[in-house]
Amino acid sequence: MIRAGIVGGTGYTGAELLRLLMAHPEVEVVAVTSRQEAGRPVSELHPGLRGYLELEYREPADAGLEQCDVVFFATPHAAAMHAVPALLDARVRVVDLSADFRLRDAELWARWYGEAHACPELLEEAVYGLPELNREALHDAQLVACPGCYPTAIVLGFLPLVEAGLVDPATLVADAVTGVSGAGRKASVAMLHGEVSESFRAYGVAGHRHLPEISAVLQGVSAAEVGLVFVPHLVPMNRGIHATLHARLDGSLDLADLQAAFERRYQGEPCVDVMPPGSLPETRSVRGSNMCRVAVHQPPGQPQQVVVLSVIDNLVKGASGQAVQNMNLMFGLDETLGLVSPGMLP
Amino acid sequence: MIRAGIVGGTGYTGAELLRLLMAHPEVEVVAVTSRQEAGRPVSELHPGLRGYLELEYREPADAGLEQCDVVFFATPHAAAMHAVPALLDARVRVVDLSADFRLRDAELWARWYGEAHACPELLEEAVYGLPELNREALHDAQLVACPGCYPTAIVLGFLPLVEAGLVDPATLVADAVTGVSGAGRKASVAMLHGEVSESFRAYGVAGHRHLPEISAVLQGVSAAEVGLVFVPHLVPMNRGIHATLHARLDGSLDLADLQAAFERRYQGEPCVDVMPPGSLPETRSVRGSNMCRVAVHQPPGQPQQVVVLSVIDNLVKGASGQAVQNMNLMFGLDETLGLVSPGMLP
Amino acid sequence: MIRAGIVGGTGYTGAELLRLLMAHPEVEVVAVTSRQEAGRPVSELHPGLRGYLELEYREPADAGLEQCDVVFFATPHAAAMHAVPALLDARVRVVDLSADFRLRDAELWARWYGEAHACPELLEEAVYGLPELNREALHDAQLVACPGCYPTAIVLGFLPLVEAGLVDPATLVADAVTGVSGAGRKASVAMLHGEVSESFRAYGVAGHRHLPEISAVLQGVSAAEVGLVFVPHLVPMNRGIHATLHARLDGSLDLADLQAAFERRYQGEPCVDVMPPGSLPETRSVRGSNMCRVAVHQPPGQPQQVVVLSVIDNLVKGASGQAVQNMNLMFGLDETLGLVSPGMLP
Amino acid sequence: MIRAGIVGGTGYTGAELLRLLMAHPEVEVVAVTSRQEAGRPVSELHPGLRGYLELEYREPADAGLEQCDVVFFATPHAAAMHAVPALLDARVRVVDLSADFRLRDAELWARWYGEAHACPELLEEAVYGLPELNREALHDAQLVACPGCYPTAIVLGFLPLVEAGLVDPATLVADAVTGVSGAGRKASVAMLHGEVSESFRAYGVAGHRHLPEISAVLQGVSAAEVGLVFVPHLVPMNRGIHATLHARLDGSLDLADLQAAFERRYQGEPCVDVMPPGSLPETRSVRGSNMCRVAVHQPPGQPQQVVVLSVIDNLVKGASGQAVQNMNLMFGLDETLGLVSPGMLP
Repeated sequence: MIRAGIVGGTGYTGAELLRLLMAHPEVEVVAVTSRQEAGRPVSELHPGLRGYLELEYREPADAGLEQCDVVFFATPHAAAMHAVPALLDARVRVVDLSADFRLRDAELWARWYGEAHACPELLEEAVYGLPELNREALHDAQLVACPGCYPTAIVLGFLPLVEAGLVDPATLVADAVTGVSGAGRKASVAMLHGEVSESFRAYGVAGHRHLPEISAVLQGVSAAEVGLVFVPHLVPMNRGIHATLHARLDGSLDLADLQAAFERRYQGEPCVDVMPPGSLPETRSVRGSNMCRVAVHQPPGQPQQVVVLSVIDNLVKGASGQAVQNMNLMFGLDETLGLVSPGMLP
Repeated sequence: MIRAGIVGGTGYTGAELLRLLMAHPEVEVVAVTSRQEAGRPVSELHPGLRGYLELEYREPADAGLEQCDVVFFATPHAAAMHAVPALLDARVRVVDLSADFRLRDAELWARWYGEAHACPELLEEAVYGLPELNREALHDAQLVACPGCYPTAIVLGFLPLVEAGLVDPATLVADAVTGVSGAGRKASVAMLHGEVSESFRAYGVAGHRHLPEISAVLQGVSAAEVGLVFVPHLVPMNRGIHATLHARLDGSLDLADLQAAFERRYQGEPCVDVMPPGSLPETRSVRGSNMCRVAVHQPPGQPQQVVVLSVIDNLVKGASGQAVQNMNLMFGLDETLGLVSPGMLP
Repeated sequence: MIRAGIVGGTGYTGAELLRLLMAHPEVEVVAVTSRQEAGRPVSELHPGLRGYLELEYREPADAGLEQCDVVFFATPHAAAMHAVPALLDARVRVVDLSADFRLRDAELWARWYGEAHACPELLEEAVYGLPELNREALHDAQLVACPGCYPTAIVLGFLPLVEAGLVDPATLVADAVTGVSGAGRKASVAMLHGEVSESFRAYGVAGHRHLPEISAVLQGVSAAEVGLVFVPHLVPMNRGIHATLHARLDGSLDLADLQAAFERRYQGEPCVDVMPPGSLPETRSVRGSNMCRVAVHQPPGQPQQVVVLSVIDNLVKGASGQAVQNMNLMFGLDETLGLVSPGMLP
Repeated sequence: MIRAGIVGGTGYTGAELLRLLMAHPEVEVVAVTSRQEAGRPVSELHPGLRGYLELEYREPADAGLEQCDVVFFATPHAAAMHAVPALLDARVRVVDLSADFRLRDAELWARWYGEAHACPELLEEAVYGLPELNREALHDAQLVACPGCYPTAIVLGFLPLVEAGLVDPATLVADAVTGVSGAGRKASVAMLHGEVSESFRAYGVAGHRHLPEISAVLQGVSAAEVGLVFVPHLVPMNRGIHATLHARLDGSLDLADLQAAFERRYQGEPCVDVMPPGSLPETRSVRGSNMCRVAVHQPPGQPQQVVVLSVIDNLVKGASGQAVQNMNLMFGLDETLGLVSPGMLP
């Protein structure tokens, strides 16, 4: 059994990680930390875990994290980077669900996250935990940076086109929506039910932290310069990301060519489902499931344009499920162990 | 492996049964029927099952149901009763999620369901599939009638009080709410999103089919005559039943006595969670989970009254999960095999 | 034109009051206060008011409230009671939407609101602003205490039965639900969209502040002692209260008698709609509208019980609309002036 | 008083038209038709209208429509075109909320709506009822074709850019979402609450009927050829359209230039609100209100691109409110008479 610790077990990604690990046959959760809730049973905060988990929250320093085989960080940004070096020194492997190790460029990180990075020397070592891109490197990774939720959906949607040079990468447009769990579980007026429900709005048009992440990952697989317009939106639902992606085609490709490119690129991938041409993936088809579904379209009357639709559950393939997928790879387990549940309907 | 067939695999209980059985280590789903969708891949109707299930819907007659070890009926009422006798003759065990075998009295059934029962002789043989009440009988059952969703939540809430004679059973009041999946997946104006969301209403006040079922089950465990007012309501959410139960106490009991009665009655029950006194169970704490959570209260200034709150997921403990729990008992498996997932948050 | 001021214009009742007063032909809003937002345009916080209202929020002390004809308090409890005496001295009439003047008994108020009342001498003078009960007294009122949202729905539902002695008032049960706007617009984890949506739960079972208010008002019209069990619940929708009311009938009344009693009691009432027997009022039928709809039922097999269903919009008839109705009466206007919009569908 | 008839008063646009006209001081609704509901009180189907409207539904032929001053068609497409010629002959003015007279090209209409147009000779005479484009022509119009909901939001968002030649009109991308009321009020599985809520999906990517309408209107104001990618999406809320619009700038314009262009174009427009630069309009800010709010942005790092956000209530400015605005213009009334309510929050 893999002994796992979770730093930051009060929020939505922490709760989802606990839910997934409860059903994982090779993992035992031995520590869950929270400064604020230390001493309180985890199942008091998350009554859904009554009968599943007897642990109490502990202060991070008292939780025995250095005795774990793996520690997951389900913390806000700028927390993990202060604790990771000591864990790595103690030979504990780390899966970070936060943003701290997603960018390789410490200056870029500092610009977008508003403070200097605490351990820039680890940015190069951290493996960006998108198995569809970095599977080999994940096997031996000591430190994995799980991608952001938008980046997972958007990168997986653009990847076959940009990698193969099928589109002009300077013309990318990504209009994407997220459910409310993407904003976390902290008290705020803006995320009250009365503010969010029965409404729809964009946010972060002037600059969202996932923009440099997406751009950097796509630039890494592109020969030409990447230019991306990214507009995130908030939709009144709990879970799910849907990305509507646009690009200008580089050459005269038809829908069959594009479909073939997607099928080729994701052949054998256990967590990416290329749907038949013309499909309209719903976010609920992946609710609770570690799957990304993509569908490719050519819009009527605009043969030089391509539209890709991509959906994930932001808490699963966009966070905690992908973290488990990465852990499985790191420990030589079947990549989807514990991640077998289909989407929940309705 | 248990070879399982599902009759009526297009609705919400059928879909949920498929989701649960995909993760069940001892069951192989070998047939899913639908007259309307025969020939269509199941995963085309339920894209969440893409990659999990390769079957197509079949006509019931062509589905090879008589070669199954167990057949689940996830059909509207008045369908199973026409097909069950032949299956029992073929020594196939049957778990019926519909209402056809829930009442023992054929006349009562006919009155509430508007037609004569097709096989009244089986009503006595059918075991009412509430494991907390009938566990022993379920081991050898050939035909199990899974309780309705409201009856599950309401009976489990009243059971410790009525069985032990702690309340006057003539004074029962049950105000309960259901999420929309309780109404099934058929085209209707009344259940459109635009009709249901942002509204709340009672229905069936003049007589709901679960009223005779609840009354009969409670009467079966009560020495005195049961009188029940039952008001169901529709709440704009997908899943969940919440019952607020009232009764007049028979004698001078305090909250500690009542709590003790509940804890005693449900000690060791794997799928009923008696919460600490004063708890306020949320339906989401059981979303996707085969658990019933109950909490007992005494209202301020009214020491002769008791209030019980009871929640289930109507599609799991209220339907498909309870069906699997029953199947596990019938086949001598661990009662909760395949039912281990905690509630999904959010 | 009536010059109106609003103290506390940032929350939901303040916003709804502004919306209603924008369409009122005899009112000019001349001041809106907020300590926190002083100096900021009201329409910046409430963009729906762009083009309707040019005012900025002011500090209460600088807002010129004493020059108003009427001041509305849309504040949390324990604020109005500190400011009202000075306004009354300045001959400004006051409509308080908060709880400060709803109870006549200062000790009871102190017990439920956790502090001593600041001006207990005004409790007797304040008129409880339920026009269906106190219309005459409202004409000359200087200080009106608008009823709570639950009390409005529940009192209007029980009133014809209790006043006329048709039920045993010791047996009242009220299971009621509210939309999220009832909890106000302050930052909290419990009211996040991710916490509220797709779930249903009771709250305040151990004692809700509306319990003594409802009991006192009903006791005021009842010959015998009132005993009430009140269980409030939270439903994932923005607006609306639905109350399901139970009582034991005192004598042998049938549904026609009960219907006649309701129709007689509310004949000519412009803001109470007695629906035909058997009706199932939906909260959305009163969304945005100052109407209370009630329907009376006798549950099947329980002829000694009565069930009343009562719905309002908690922000309109349960708060801001009733405040305007009261103001209309105070200033001798048509009672429904500015309150003519039917419910919004969907 | 203007005597108004409504053909098709059972759906959402019909209900919204009734709600708005109830509050219109110069209109009396004298007839509401429905083949299916003929003989039934309108307020039985729409209980929110109890106390406001005493009419029963009538068969269109018996409703006395030719005695009206104006008849609104709130029907599915391909109904109005069969009835309009006779009404025009009877000198009744017509406001059609359906699609029948939105396109000028009868062949194009036939291609997208699947049948020949019944009165192609009227297509030229019909005035496209977007006041911001055709105000003058509306004064004398006998037949007004109200724009579709998406076209209203998208055309008003692109108009200042395309009219003035500020963008390359061949590069337009419109990702837009609608609430469920856009799909109407007919029984369907796809629009059930259980299918729509907690999910998000695109639809009509292969060709939506609003695409030729938007393209034609924009082409009408553009010197160069218009090319548009239009992807509509369904969002789990009742009302609202949000359009996220992209285009490539033609020249070196900065955000101030773009903002000035919008403010200039919509100066004095009573139903278009150009928000300050950087604003993020929410659909709820226009709920129940006949306003379109637009905000212009330049995305970070992409100075050659412009993003416009545009929101309306699909049932008000996108349908019934715009119909009233058109009627006001046709009858020489103040353009916003009866349309003064601010958006409803929450």
